[in-house]
Amino acid sequence: MSQPINYPEGFRAAGAACGLKPDGRPDIALIASDRACTAAGVFTTNRVKAAPVLYDQAILAASDPQIRAVIINTGSANACTGADGLARTRQTAAWVAQALGCEPESVLALSTGVIGLPLALEPVRQGIAALREQLASDGWRAAAEAIMTTDTRPKIASVRHPDGFTVTGIAKGAGMIAPNMATMLSVIAMDAQVERALLQRALVRAAGASFNRIVVDGDMSTNDSVIALANGASGVTVTNEDTLVEALQAVCVPLAQSIVRDGEGATKFVTVHVSGAPDEASAMQVARAIATSALVKTAFYGADPNWGRIVCAAGYSGVAIRPERLSLWLLDAAQHPTLQLVERGEPLDYDEPAAIALMQEPEWGVHLDLGLGKTHTWIWTCDLSHEYVTINGHYRT
Amino acid sequence: MSQPINYPEGFRAAGAACGLKPDGRPDIALIASDRACTAAGVFTTNRVKAAPVLYDQAILAASDPQIRAVIINTGSANACTGADGLARTRQTAAWVAQALGCEPESVLALSTGVIGLPLALEPVRQGIAALREQLASDGWRAAAEAIMTTDTRPKIASVRHPDGFTVTGIAKGAGMIAPNMATMLSVIAMDAQVERALLQRALVRAAGASFNRIVVDGDMSTNDSVIALANGASGVTVTNEDTLVEALQAVCVPLAQSIVRDGEGATKFVTVHVSGAPDEASAMQVARAIATSALVKTAFYGADPNWGRIVCAAGYSGVAIRPERLSLWLLDAAQHPTLQLVERGEPLDYDEPAAIALMQEPEWGVHLDLGLGKTHTWIWTCDLSHEYVTINGHYRT
Repeated sequence: MSQPINYPEGFRAAGAACGLKPDGRPDIALIASDRACTAAGVFTTNRVKAAPVLYDQAILAASDPQIRAVIINTGSANACTGADGLARTRQTAAWVAQALGCEPESVLALSTGVIGLPLALEPVRQGIAALREQLASDGWRAAAEAIMTTDTRPKIASVRHPDGFTVTGIAKGAGMIAPNMATMLSVIAMDAQVERALLQRALVRAAGASFNRIVVDGDMSTNDSVIALANGASGVTVTNEDTLVEALQAVCVPLAQSIVRDGEGATKFVTVHVSGAPDEASAMQVARAIATSALVKTAFYGADPNWGRIVCAAGYSGVAIRPERLSLWLLDAAQHPTLQLVERGEPLDYDEPAAIALMQEPEWGVHLDLGLGKTHTWIWTCDLSHEYVTINGHYRT
Repeated sequence: MSQPINYPEGFRAAGAACGLKPDGRPDIALIASDRACTAAGVFTTNRVKAAPVLYDQAILAASDPQIRAVIINTGSANACTGADGLARTRQTAAWVAQALGCEPESVLALSTGVIGLPLALEPVRQGIAALREQLASDGWRAAAEAIMTTDTRPKIASVRHPDGFTVTGIAKGAGMIAPNMATMLSVIAMDAQVERALLQRALVRAAGASFNRIVVDGDMSTNDSVIALANGASGVTVTNEDTLVEALQAVCVPLAQSIVRDGEGATKFVTVHVSGAPDEASAMQVARAIATSALVKTAFYGADPNWGRIVCAAGYSGVAIRPERLSLWLLDAAQHPTLQLVERGEPLDYDEPAAIALMQEPEWGVHLDLGLGKTHTWIWTCDLSHEYVTINGHYRT
């Protein structure tokens, strides 16, 4: 993440401290475009959706949304806050529209923080005034810092596409991370011109290959959202879906990975590969069961090659695996098979000290072959540590 | 569990140390009946089934199994051990049959321990010889002690039924505890005479109201088994299914609860009630999502009334809940509503210090009403603590 940031043309960003976080850290961010953007969104599939999610979904469902900005607050998720919560999101968007001189329905909103807490409007109003002054084309890092909660590092990624356009994204993550959907907050801006339906299709595909492949603790938040904006300021028009997916992935994959690397209390970044599956859904279901298992994740933490827990999780995943066909390997950081632990259901006499040494590294993988078909998939996950319990046992206090 | 134990007639039990546990603690147990028993079993639904599970299921599938004994070893789960593992279970049963003078197919076997490790036969052979000498009608506590793994306390429950028969059970639990099935090892012996099909039906019902209602970490083991034996030694014949279920539950419920109370690292025993559900399956699905959520369980640990995490887990449970209909209460140890936190989707201004004080108690509950129907269910669970991570990060080393 220490690579130089490419700034998309026609966009400005800012982060500010407005008092939503009690410790005075930056807590509100704004991304603005100098012209109307086409926009796409992928949102939590949780039945309990925060007010800003409901608000954004309504705006993006309109016939021709012309998006100019995304405002992001921390401190309150504005979820489980009823009609009053929705009114506060509307008020926030109205203030941003006023500050930028656009229509309120050109403003999207994202929130993160404690559920059930009312969004404090006065800090937001002051924050928007400060953000307006600070908006700058190189303000992305400030914006990324201002949306951090239990994140320990800001998350930015950007790419200059050879076709002459730039994609830049920020994200926040850390806890409540599960796949099956955009599992955190992210805003991705590009200065290409992209037709709206194409942008939505490409974002869904890119999220499927990035944000939907990460697991920290298996909890899916009420607020998870990924927003993509395309303002056309570069003069380049993208019409090829694969080109667009590739460009989005070049930003979404490092953002998603950085969320796992910075997972709450995470000490290890582990890629869980599942191959030999009959289909993609089964492969994902097995990978997810492994990546979510508390017993697997604590074994990762303890660098314990207790492979039985991996096989066990596959066994209760709901997929009709056949134990006698399972093969299992440990992979090095480059995802190359290093040690085979199980061969078609039979435990092998592997080099245990070598396995422990590998698992003590900060980055490695496991690969389970189901022996049932030809589909392969993977998930990025982290371990479950004492620090995770410390962070989440006392999140609010 | 410090109540006096009632001993079922015609049964003897023993526990011994044979070297399966490296620290010399008791590690092998035997339950034997002086006459043939009808038997019933509920086993893991994990696709990866340990050798003893496959072995017992085959025996119980025979036309008229005449069970005389159950042998239980720790130290090795004898799972993922292939044909060799099954041969070792058969050898174990054969030695027990020899020691007791019965047929090998009259012996059931249970194993617990690390997956993928071969069951060391020589200690088992010596252990069986020792157990044979120590079998005694009052040997239940020794047996319960010998099947402990990360359990900190032996688990025994017994009841003298007014109809004149006795039911006594032992169990081990501690980790890898999830509902949806017999979630640990338990053997329940009764001296009533019970027809086999009736015993099976009653055991399924009793397990559904006890062992299938507990969650420690959501992981479902390869070995989970509950075995019920009825030997008729009391001279009482039970033909009424409800009577039998009631008697079994009187043992299974305290055993199941003691598993949660003694869950790995558990500091709190929490009952999760879900009411207002359209049906039992939905109610269970919501209760399970709440009881399994790492974020909810760490909040329980930290005595943090962060009720948003509970609502959030209900939201991703897969049940079509309606956020605006949810109501939530904290319950005291007697499961009486003490503090209401949410009323039909609206957060209430509750007494937070009182909520924290309640959650610092070792035993309490939460009650989520979905407002969708009339079905109520509950699950017993515990918190997720630093100690859980310590235990499972270094289970084998």
